[in-house]
This record gives sequence, structure tokens and C-alpha cells, in this order.
Amino acid sequence: EDVGASVKNMDDPYGNEPKRHAALKPASKQPFNAEPPLALLADNLITPNELFYVRNHLPVPDVDAKTYELEIFEDTMNKEKILKLNDIKKYPKHSVTATIQCAGNRRSEMIKVKAVKGLSWGQAAIGNAVWSGAKLCDVLKDMGITEETTQALHVQFEGLDTDPTNMPYGSSIQIEKALDPHGDVILAYEMNGEPIPRDHGYPLRVIVPGVVGARNVKWLGRIVLSKEESHAHWQQNDYKGFAPNVDWDTVDFTKSPAIQELPVISAICEPGEGETLKVVNGKIKLRGYAWSGGGRKIVRVDVSADGGKTWQAVDSLESDRTRHPRAWCWTLWQAEIPVHKNQSNIQLCVKAVDSQYNTQPENFENIWNLRGVLANAYHRVNVKIQ
Amino acid sequence: EDVGASVKNMDDPYGNEPKRHAALKPASKQPFNAEPPLALLADNLITPNELFYVRNHLPVPDVDAKTYELEIFEDTMNKEKILKLNDIKKYPKHSVTATIQCAGNRRSEMIKVKAVKGLSWGQAAIGNAVWSGAKLCDVLKDMGITEETTQALHVQFEGLDTDPTNMPYGSSIQIEKALDPHGDVILAYEMNGEPIPRDHGYPLRVIVPGVVGARNVKWLGRIVLSKEESHAHWQQNDYKGFAPNVDWDTVDFTKSPAIQELPVISAICEPGEGETLKVVNGKIKLRGYAWSGGGRKIVRVDVSADGGKTWQAVDSLESDRTRHPRAWCWTLWQAEIPVHKNQSNIQLCVKAVDSQYNTQPENFENIWNLRGVLANAYHRVNVKIQ
Ligand SMILES: [Mo]
Ligand SMILES: [Mo]
Repeated sequence: EDVGASVKNMDDPYGNEPKRHAALKPASKQPFNAEPPLALLADNLITPNELFYVRNHLPVPDVDAKTYELEIFEDTMNKEKILKLNDIKKYPKHSVTATIQCAGNRRSEMIKVKAVKGLSWGQAAIGNAVWSGAKLCDVLKDMGITEETTQALHVQFEGLDTDPTNMPYGSSIQIEKALDPHGDVILAYEMNGEPIPRDHGYPLRVIVPGVVGARNVKWLGRIVLSKEESHAHWQQNDYKGFAPNVDWDTVDFTKSPAIQELPVISAICEPGEGETLKVVNGKIKLRGYAWSGGGRKIVRVDVSADGGKTWQAVDSLESDRTRHPRAWCWTLWQAEIPVHKNQSNIQLCVKAVDSQYNTQPENFENIWNLRGVLANAYHRVNVKIQ
Repeated sequence: EDVGASVKNMDDPYGNEPKRHAALKPASKQPFNAEPPLALLADNLITPNELFYVRNHLPVPDVDAKTYELEIFEDTMNKEKILKLNDIKKYPKHSVTATIQCAGNRRSEMIKVKAVKGLSWGQAAIGNAVWSGAKLCDVLKDMGITEETTQALHVQFEGLDTDPTNMPYGSSIQIEKALDPHGDVILAYEMNGEPIPRDHGYPLRVIVPGVVGARNVKWLGRIVLSKEESHAHWQQNDYKGFAPNVDWDTVDFTKSPAIQELPVISAICEPGEGETLKVVNGKIKLRGYAWSGGGRKIVRVDVSADGGKTWQAVDSLESDRTRHPRAWCWTLWQAEIPVHKNQSNIQLCVKAVDSQYNTQPENFENIWNLRGVLANAYHRVNVKIQ
């Protein structure tokens, strides 16, 4: 009999985690946080579910879709509604191709300037998927909650994942984003045409396109529309940016706004750091991704093979057809760049430009922050030439 | 008799220009382009009309408000409407505080890297005003033009200012911006509570908040909703960004998108370059502006008194109460920053962070472009310490 193992599992909050793809490289195991190999990320405009980075703050809850309920509460009108999964599926099904990125993506590069607190992510804590479900604004409208009727300023989301004191994961977004039909906020029950996998929020995750992963709350259990932001740790005392001089002795988390839309970023997925490259016809090949939050589209990607002294714009950019300001999908890029054969060690760099013509900072020194978030300086990869 | 002078004026396209404030420093006289003294800019959150930078592409037309007409033509539905100024004034009057900036602001700094084509603007080709008029989306809705009915993708604007071949100034914006009630696009007949001065578009200017000055067409004569962008020079072959390696031999203007929303920027208005400063209580005082296009709000301004080696966040930020993503108004800032008395020459720097957590590039080298636009690197001011 296996009763012992079963009892042991029930005592262990991490005793019932989903199976994961062997290629995912954990940044931490409990809670589970992992990213795919960087080179694989550039293979597909749509990231396969099993290779999508996983960022969990707590143990993965085991939710039964049959008994699942979503509670929506509007605090300024005192309205409440309970929806079962089938109720949510009755609303028009809307699909949006949206890139989600962890605020800590590329933190391992920022760490080189000075230590920070946080998981040591590489460049693959980002992925792109087709999310399908009901538009949050449709559900709210059905409840009589519109710009004209509500005085709420924030939409709080609570997950069904809880800490040892039974506090759920939580965070919030601005009401404007939720009520805007073009904001494309989705109560998603599908990821790339399949029920959302457990690691990504089964049975329901809110998708907030263009906004940091931390607000795309998984295992969504409760929505509260309020004059106040979420009081949860992750909204108030985490996921905020600070000036480089602010340290753990001087930090005042009330002084910075919670991260919502992420800034423009890019990375070289191939070649990898330290690789030796063959030069073909005087050129080497590079590929990678670029993305900007807030629905800004990538309009140009520049690459350098001399550490940023000279640049050329990349010819091949792949994305979907959505336009600014609803360009939620990342851009994959490929480049061939000339190198001098007499060089043996070179530094490759990439920087992207979005449809607001914002671009990336050159180095990490001046954007360093104690939580190691928003690490969007030029990505630099040192390689050897054969 | 003065007939000679009068005839001479009529032959001279620049014979009937408005009077300008003596403090405006011309970057060119025909057409008239001028900016106010930088230190004055930081005196008022609302820039006085007479000190607002002037960026004219052609001679200033002399428009009679009594006979003035605005033509609106929808090309995909073949609808037309002619509005007199009084017709426009019948729509609900909407006021918006919006900063307008020239794409070439701060070009004189970028020039130091390598020559560019364009007027040598300092840091004051930017201003902030309260613009009042009818919402363009209200006028279009009245014509039956909505998201549901139109197939247009662009809104073209033509000015009543013309070149020697009678071609008007023109440019266009995306339809999404024009139809969005929260886009706040205004057919403005007032600037800071007065009829719009001739230099700023009397009697009607379209205000496109968050978008480059070049699309805020003055002396507005015609609006065309179309599947195509404006064919005008200023939309097609000007006001675009390029990679630093692109020169006038290799440039292909079809490869870059027309500049619309401007990226995050900031400047030190006081002290000025080369000034000698008194140190009071170990500190010096700085003030300036920061702004970001696209309705992004300034959330932090960092200053440095050692050329960017160390930074501190500014405590005093002044703006209006509008929230992201409708924060059209700039932010004025003031800082007191400690300096070491044993230094005699120091470099002050400023950089801003907006509500998308985008920040500015460090230097001009990697954002250099042949037209010298989008010059938003850190602003650096060298001063002497007494
Ligand atoms: Mo995250
Ligand atoms: Mo301009």
C-alpha cells in the first residue's frame, strides 16, 4: 500500500506540483520557477506551452474546473457576481496573441553590477502565446460596471494559490486598462488552443496584454474593483523600480509606482555566450526577440558586432499584424552581420526601437535597482570567431 | 504714399508675419522658427503663449475667422462636411493640457556626434498649454464616422500654409488615436484661454496630445480620412528615425515609420552650460522639465553631479492630475544635490523614467540619425563650482 506517500504529499504544500518539461531550467524549485533554453525561444513566434517559462510565487493549486467559481466584487457600487467556468465560456470568445514577461527577466545580467534580491533569470523569462477567453470588459458591462457607473480606480486580482498563512497571491491593474475594449484584458481558459496548463493558471488566468507577468494572475479566484490598489505584497512591496542609489536601508516602497507596462527590450537567442562561430561569406548569423509593453510595436532592431561601436538595422522582423497601440505580440528577428576575420573575440550587441521610438539603455549601471527588475539594457554576447 | 511697401509685401511670402516676443531666439527666420530662453521654460507649468516655441515650415497664412472653413472628407465612405468656425464651436468645448514638442528638440546636442540636416534647436523646442475646442471624435461621430463604419486607417491633416507651388503643409495620424474618446484629439480654437495666436495656428489647430508637433497641424484647412497616410513630404520623407549607420546615400524613407508618439525626455533648464555656481549648505540647485509621449506620465527624475557615476531621485515633481495613459502634461522638477567643494568643474546630468518604466539612452552616439530627430539622451550640463 502507498498510504504513507499519499499522507506525506498532503502535508507538503509542494507535494502536488504538475509535471514539467525536462528542458526547463529551474531558477528555483519551491516555488517552481524555470525558463526554457534561450536558443529554443527563437524557434517559434508562438512559444509551445511546455516550453513557456514558469513563474510561480507559491505552490500550484489543484483546481477542479467543475466546482471552480470566480467571484467579482465592485466595491464602489457594492455589486457582486459569482461565475462558474461555463458561465465565463458563454461570453463571446476572444483570442489575443500576447507576450508575457517576468519583471525579473535578464536579472542575471544586472547582478554583475551589484547584488540584488531575486531569482537569477537568464533571458528566457518571456514567452508568447495565443490566449482565449471572455473579455473582462464584456463581463463587467453585463454587471452594469462601465466608465460611467463605477468610481473604482483599480482592478484587484486574487489567485487561488495561497501562502502558509492562507493569504492568496494578489496584484492589481488600473481600471482604464480593464474597461478599454481595446485593452484586450481576457479571462483566459485556453493557452494556444488547449485548456491552460496547471503551471500557467488552470482553469482561468487573467491576461493583461502589454503588462508585466505579475499582474496576469493565475488560478484567478476573485476580482475586486476598488478605489485602492491591491494591498498584496506583490503590488505594494515588490515589482517596483528605484533609482540606483536606493538600497535596502533607504528604500521606501510607497515612493515608486507598481510596475505595469514593461519597457522596450531585446535579446540575442543565438549564438550563446562564449560560443565559437564559423564565418560564412564574411558574415555570422544572429537571431533573437524584441518586445515592448503597452501595445507598442517593435519598429527596428539594431545589431552590432563590435561591442556597440557600429550598428546595422536588422532586415528580417517577424511578428503578427496588430498595430500600435495594440501590438501585444513580440517580434522575432534574424540578422547576418559582417565580421573582420582578423578578430578572434568579438562582442555582439542588440537594441530595439518601439513605435513610440523609445529605445534601450546602453548599460546596467544607471538602471540598476535593488530588486533587479526592468533589466532592459543592451544584450551583449561575447563570442569567438573561428 | 506707401503703395510701394505694400506691393513689396504682397510679393514677399514672408511679408505678413505676426509680431514675436523679443525673447524668442530664432533658429531660422524664413520660415520663422524660434525657442524661448531655457531658464524661462521652467518658470511656469503652463508656458505663456508669447514664449511658446514656434516651429513653422512655411509662411504664416493670414486667415479670416469669419470666412474660414474646415473641410472633412471620409474617403472610404465618400462623406464630406464643411464646417465654419462657429459650427465647430457648437460642439461641447473640451480643454486638454498638452505638451507639444518638436521632433528636433535638442538636435544641437546630437550634432556634436556628427553633422545632421535640420534646424539647430536647443532644449526649448517644447512647451505646455491648455488647448480648448471640439473633440475630433465628436465631430466625426456626428458625420456617422465611427470604428464600426469607417475603413480608414489614417487621418490626414492639411494646413492653409502653402509652399511656392501652392502645396499645403500636411501630415497624418493613425485612425485609432482620432476615434478614441480618450485620445483627446482636439480641433482647438483656444490656447491658454485666448484665441490661438497666428504663429500657433489661428483660427484652428488640431491638437494630438502625446504626438510629435509635426502632426499637430496649424491653420487646419482640410481633414481626410483614408486607408493611406498623408502623401506630404513631412509624413513620407521627413520626421522619421533611422539607425546610426544610415546616411544620405543609403537612406530609404519607406523603411521607417513616421514619428508619432515621442519617447521619454528631460532637460536641465537651470543652471546653464558653463555657469559658475555657489554652493549653499554643500548643495547646488537644479530645475528642468521631463516629459514622455503617448500619455505616459513621468514617475521619476534622476540627477547626477558627477557625470552620471552616481544618481539621486528628485523629490519635487510638478504636473497635473491626469493619469497614465492620458498624462499629456509635462513635469517640472527641482532638485538640490550635494557637491564636493574640492571639485571646480562638474558635469550635471538628468534622466527621466515614465509610467512604462522606459528611460533615456545615456549618449547620442547610438541614437544618432541623419535628420537629428529624437534627441533624448541624458542632458549633460558642465558647470564650475565657486
Ligand atoms: Mo515576475
Ligand atoms: Mo518639428
